[in-house]
Amino acid sequence: MNSKTQNTSFQRQVPAGDTHERDVCTTCGFINYVNPKIVTGSIVRHNGKLLLCRRAIEPRTGFWTLPAGFMELGETAEQAAMREAREEANAEIVIDRLLAVYTIPRIAQVQIMYLAHLDGDAFSPGPESLDVMLASWDEIPWGELAFPSVRWALEQYRGVEGVTDFAPFSNPPGEFGGM
Amino acid sequence: MNSKTQNTSFQRQVPAGDTHERDVCTTCGFINYVNPKIVTGSIVRHNGKLLLCRRAIEPRTGFWTLPAGFMELGETAEQAAMREAREEANAEIVIDRLLAVYTIPRIAQVQIMYLAHLDGDAFSPGPESLDVMLASWDEIPWGELAFPSVRWALEQYRGVEGVTDFAPFSNPPGEFGGM
Repeated sequence: MNSKTQNTSFQRQVPAGDTHERDVCTTCGFINYVNPKIVTGSIVRHNGKLLLCRRAIEPRTGFWTLPAGFMELGETAEQAAMREAREEANAEIVIDRLLAVYTIPRIAQVQIMYLAHLDGDAFSPGPESLDVMLASWDEIPWGELAFPSVRWALEQYRGVEGVTDFAPFSNPPGEFGGM
Repeated sequence: MNSKTQNTSFQRQVPAGDTHERDVCTTCGFINYVNPKIVTGSIVRHNGKLLLCRRAIEPRTGFWTLPAGFMELGETAEQAAMREAREEANAEIVIDRLLAVYTIPRIAQVQIMYLAHLDGDAFSPGPESLDVMLASWDEIPWGELAFPSVRWALEQYRGVEGVTDFAPFSNPPGEFGGM
């Protein structure tokens, strides 16, 4: 995260024409804008089952998640979701449509979740995963999901499985991702 | 933007376990992750017309845009879109659904665009707007729109006006926001 500054010349100020306090360098005037970061991921379908990854890294090592991660510079949101499926599950995927956009204010994340399907049928654990599986609804380890938003995405998708045209979801009412 | 670093102790390195080069401080190990930033905005409807704002600030001063701007810490994407309508058009809005998620890689932006409607009927230019108006399709100043993504949102919305359930849009094929 870039919320840490390594220099004592920063002061909290509202820059001219701005509405929010920022860290402003009193030496050079540099303004360190800190904004939410984007996580992109996907529910990847294959023969009626869904691709889940068991996390090999913190946070929530050993718990199950959807392939997802921080979006990088120089890629589209869809390309970022495809890259994450490749990195975490050695899976090539095709993006079908947007499922949901969630905000987790506590950790300053916006999560953009797509519906996708496997391109081919290859998948295996990538370096950030202990294990990967294709799970039917009954096989999803609901008690061992890594994050609330993984549950949100799976439950919301279950309600529209087989439907093409629907409005994308956001946070369930009153839920903001507290663990 | 936080792409500028004010200190010569940074080196480009791939941190352990990472896949991308980052600016890493050789003194303290601080990693300056730079990721895309989020712009949220909305098409605001009122009596069949759409709310447009004439920009008072750079870039594209004098051109027409939708109320939109950078998402801040501590708010949801929907709250950010509501705040932007308040700041730019003194308008209270109700978010109806998500219209589109665009990526503009050249400027490292993801734009999250909602459909909304005016709550009440008050609106007027905020400090970042020279003028605001409610425009019918025929009144939209198509030749004086500030950004390609403003045109994308308006054109894509025109194709689904009156429809509730549709998959959200992304960049038009082959378009990445070049001016």
